[in-house]
Amino acid sequence: MSAMGQKCMDRVSSFLFEYDTPRMVLVRNKKVGLTFRLIQLIVLAYIIGWVFLYEKGYQSQDSIVSSVSVKLKGLTLTNESVLGPHIWDVVDYVFPPQGDNSFVVMTNFIVTPGQKQGTCPEVNVSASFSGLRSRGVSSCLPTGLMTGKCVHFNSTVKTCEIFGWCPVEVDYHVPSPALLSEAEKFTLFIKNSITFPKFKVSRRNLVESVTKQYLRKCTYHKVTDSLCPVFELGYIVKESGQNFTFLAVKGGVVGITIDWNCDLDWPLRYCKPIYQFHGLYNDDSNVSPGFNFRYAKYYREDGMEKRTLYKVFGIRLDILVNGKAGKFDIIPTMTTIGSGIGIFGVASVLCDLLLLHFLHGRDYYKQKKFKYAEPEPVSKSECLPAEALAGVCVDVCMSNDSVTQTSTLRGNQAPS
Amino acid sequence: MSAMGQKCMDRVSSFLFEYDTPRMVLVRNKKVGLTFRLIQLIVLAYIIGWVFLYEKGYQSQDSIVSSVSVKLKGLTLTNESVLGPHIWDVVDYVFPPQGDNSFVVMTNFIVTPGQKQGTCPEVNVSASFSGLRSRGVSSCLPTGLMTGKCVHFNSTVKTCEIFGWCPVEVDYHVPSPALLSEAEKFTLFIKNSITFPKFKVSRRNLVESVTKQYLRKCTYHKVTDSLCPVFELGYIVKESGQNFTFLAVKGGVVGITIDWNCDLDWPLRYCKPIYQFHGLYNDDSNVSPGFNFRYAKYYREDGMEKRTLYKVFGIRLDILVNGKAGKFDIIPTMTTIGSGIGIFGVASVLCDLLLLHFLHGRDYYKQKKFKYAEPEPVSKSECLPAEALAGVCVDVCMSNDSVTQTSTLRGNQAPS
Amino acid sequence: MSAMGQKCMDRVSSFLFEYDTPRMVLVRNKKVGLTFRLIQLIVLAYIIGWVFLYEKGYQSQDSIVSSVSVKLKGLTLTNESVLGPHIWDVVDYVFPPQGDNSFVVMTNFIVTPGQKQGTCPEVNVSASFSGLRSRGVSSCLPTGLMTGKCVHFNSTVKTCEIFGWCPVEVDYHVPSPALLSEAEKFTLFIKNSITFPKFKVSRRNLVESVTKQYLRKCTYHKVTDSLCPVFELGYIVKESGQNFTFLAVKGGVVGITIDWNCDLDWPLRYCKPIYQFHGLYNDDSNVSPGFNFRYAKYYREDGMEKRTLYKVFGIRLDILVNGKAGKFDIIPTMTTIGSGIGIFGVASVLCDLLLLHFLHGRDYYKQKKFKYAEPEPVSKSECLPAEALAGVCVDVCMSNDSVTQTSTLRGNQAPS
Repeated sequence: MSAMGQKCMDRVSSFLFEYDTPRMVLVRNKKVGLTFRLIQLIVLAYIIGWVFLYEKGYQSQDSIVSSVSVKLKGLTLTNESVLGPHIWDVVDYVFPPQGDNSFVVMTNFIVTPGQKQGTCPEVNVSASFSGLRSRGVSSCLPTGLMTGKCVHFNSTVKTCEIFGWCPVEVDYHVPSPALLSEAEKFTLFIKNSITFPKFKVSRRNLVESVTKQYLRKCTYHKVTDSLCPVFELGYIVKESGQNFTFLAVKGGVVGITIDWNCDLDWPLRYCKPIYQFHGLYNDDSNVSPGFNFRYAKYYREDGMEKRTLYKVFGIRLDILVNGKAGKFDIIPTMTTIGSGIGIFGVASVLCDLLLLHFLHGRDYYKQKKFKYAEPEPVSKSECLPAEALAGVCVDVCMSNDSVTQTSTLRGNQAPS
Repeated sequence: MSAMGQKCMDRVSSFLFEYDTPRMVLVRNKKVGLTFRLIQLIVLAYIIGWVFLYEKGYQSQDSIVSSVSVKLKGLTLTNESVLGPHIWDVVDYVFPPQGDNSFVVMTNFIVTPGQKQGTCPEVNVSASFSGLRSRGVSSCLPTGLMTGKCVHFNSTVKTCEIFGWCPVEVDYHVPSPALLSEAEKFTLFIKNSITFPKFKVSRRNLVESVTKQYLRKCTYHKVTDSLCPVFELGYIVKESGQNFTFLAVKGGVVGITIDWNCDLDWPLRYCKPIYQFHGLYNDDSNVSPGFNFRYAKYYREDGMEKRTLYKVFGIRLDILVNGKAGKFDIIPTMTTIGSGIGIFGVASVLCDLLLLHFLHGRDYYKQKKFKYAEPEPVSKSECLPAEALAGVCVDVCMSNDSVTQTSTLRGNQAPS
Repeated sequence: MSAMGQKCMDRVSSFLFEYDTPRMVLVRNKKVGLTFRLIQLIVLAYIIGWVFLYEKGYQSQDSIVSSVSVKLKGLTLTNESVLGPHIWDVVDYVFPPQGDNSFVVMTNFIVTPGQKQGTCPEVNVSASFSGLRSRGVSSCLPTGLMTGKCVHFNSTVKTCEIFGWCPVEVDYHVPSPALLSEAEKFTLFIKNSITFPKFKVSRRNLVESVTKQYLRKCTYHKVTDSLCPVFELGYIVKESGQNFTFLAVKGGVVGITIDWNCDLDWPLRYCKPIYQFHGLYNDDSNVSPGFNFRYAKYYREDGMEKRTLYKVFGIRLDILVNGKAGKFDIIPTMTTIGSGIGIFGVASVLCDLLLLHFLHGRDYYKQKKFKYAEPEPVSKSECLPAEALAGVCVDVCMSNDSVTQTSTLRGNQAPS
């Protein structure tokens, strides 16, 4: 038992107090040496320069949680036949009213006043309209249920009678220029509050440089006032690569991207939003262009429910908040270093390839590097006569410290 | 000084022109050799096949930024006691009207017309209703403030008088089948525009194969028309694993997932959306089933503000856009290769274990692999007589090129 | 040809059946040995303890897709001069009505009844109001188009006449305390359904412990009822670090974060939401405080379109769902192990540094570890006489198995 204990102690002590390091061949060859250092330099430059500094591989990342509220300002006058002179303020032209991150600013409309449930003639695709219809101007909104009767649409044309909201909306003639084309000058105030939950950091787009005084008179401009959160609608549309006058007629969708790209290893005040604008759905293809929707103001008159139907053409603004934060973290740093060391191995692999297969003295280097262990070693207990002590056997015997070797050295053993 | 300079130069040149490569033992043992190659093969197959090809470890990823707008089509007739025959079009049954990515299609309702502020009897939980109430049909919306009086609810029952919107809504009897059960045939046109901000790639769900002609007549079907962005409401509900007739009565929530999984190393036209539908909140548990909300149409009559209250049961559609894009990037490629090389090390560790601890000839291989450096080497200046030149000392002397060794070789030195 | 084939076979078999393992020096030095084991222990503890257990490096991650619907409950009475006694229920005070993840609960308002399109005097910034205006109380909403005339605003003051919605809103006097201050007791029922698309796991916030019975009577409390999805508005505001009475007057924004952090290696029932509340935009800075918007109820009276304009101050609640799921995956496990093995290399690098440059016996260890290969080996075919067989040449000759070396051993060859 004490022998066992002793053996065990020996093992533990040899485990604790021994250190094994690979034996190396130092090759004094300028070609290989320079190649090796060069590859190492490239790998080092890549790891430090690109992975660490440019891509910030030492940081852990967090995604963004965001809340947006908006407020519009501006008013305009329209003067069309149905409503007469009419002032439109924010309450009238923004949908929904509470200022979400996705909302519509009405720029054009077709109004159908006094609709009530009843029967009336369907709008006809007569000869006079077919030109328009074929241009895809009319919508395909079914207008009501057929009653089966045929009635006069106007003095010359008879159409099917329908039961539905009457009179039926006539939406061939989209007003052009847009009725609320002055919407170009409306302003939009965006409040954006973000949080990086992992780092417990909150921030809003009213950064330090946006003071109360500045906010009162500033308007966003991508160069001169890139942090002012007050935007002119026309500027937004222009920056998104579209034409306001054109867009206002049939409507469109504009995305406002607020980009937060924060390096939290720096003070928080350097974490600033970047605003960008892009037209959405405005492909060169002409599939389903524009943006419109219908809504109605309901009222009661003469004991009946009536509604004023609006087909609203407008600019839908989608505010998309996008961003990430990075902060030093030991885990990604270690992972990066770990795989960096792995990549260093590439240098060795390449140089070994060069050294052992392409250089002039490759066989010489092979002998320096490799030692051969024969597949079937002579059994340990047996020690053959000196003449037979070629290579392997000598090695085995050597492990018995008491055996002295005086024999000749042969074959594989020498170049070890 | 010049000696110092010379020394320094020597160091630099030896650093630059030297290459050190580990010395290896080449073991000619079939078992170990095959094991080694097998493990290497598995690791290689795993890295190339799984990490690189299947998981695309050579790509950097980007998450999606998305904008959705929808448009519904369809109309239906209801004929219930309060409103009489009534046509419902998109304007009447969709909330909100502007076509957001989350909206409700009304399928059933309870209408309470002509509510105005005043006093009236509370709805009573009398014997005749208790059965219904215990089944959880009625809502718990408080209807008004108690005035403290007791008044006739109907000819037989007296209830507390309340001050609030009168008359009070009676919502025991949810119409079944649903009043707008024809909503099953309504169609939904989804426009979705996505951006991968890191790769500066934009895309919409009206992909190349969705032409204007195709769009005009197609309806989504998961097999035959999987790219058509026009959906029938009944089909959506069916695909989400629910029953429309049943869902229409009490309402429900259906999620439409648009999945963009784009490999940007391929041409952009291969980046296509996948639509999926799932019922949300429809657990087997019966906790808080259905979906409903109340809204009112306000109007003035006889100088008073009145409202028509609707308890709306409907199908809420949440369009959830989900996706990621991958594109070749040198960083993840290098990281993957780096950790791949690290994993290759596993093969060596395992084979060394096999070689040095489990094989028959393990002691032989240990001697081949290891050389022992004694803890307290003999001091360099001292060179003992030949008899004492065991192992260590010989090594030391050898480093002096001028010393010739003619002594016997002993112990650890030989198997080097 | 057969010689070629034979050679090729030899190559393949030597590739398949050979295993090369580095030759090591086993240094029996307590300092280095202990240092080596210590560093290895630290690295191992770091990899297993931190990366694997704490950061769960063996899991692949998925982000969340979520759908939220809410329902409010509560009613309150206001009694102000314009509307008289008025009961407000959910339908009246929540915007939008359908229960989205972002909605506003009205807590205060300024009502301007009976607005119609026409001309009227602008609201004047007279002496009596200038104090208020300079305090920033009034909004800057433009109220209409100037007609150019000058008319009486009241008996003493004349202002410009405008064309717009008349009479003009007077919003100097924000009612304080808030008119709907009882909103503090309103309750909010949140239904949240989440999906982790990669793992195909769905879950809702009505978890197992939230039974129908529990749901009927529970109210969220962060300690005692942390899973109850029914929240009291006052509690939410208090937990967000704000004062309800103060917030109700001018409005504010409160974020409700639902955090899902799911370890899917455990049963799904352990995956539970955590609710958190934070005030958004409530910086210490006073830039653009509060939250308000305007909306109107439109009606027709005497054949004219009229509207009741509300300036609504309210608490906007943004429900932000945030979360991630982790599940065991072979890829990140392997990547982590791979880079872990890479980091192990650090131990060798550090110990080699210690061994070869700082220890007393460093030169001795250097000789043990390194073998020198001269830059220009003698050509292989040539074998010089024994006297010239210094170092290199001997090595080369050795590779020819038939050559026997009896010469003296010199220089670099011996310490190998």
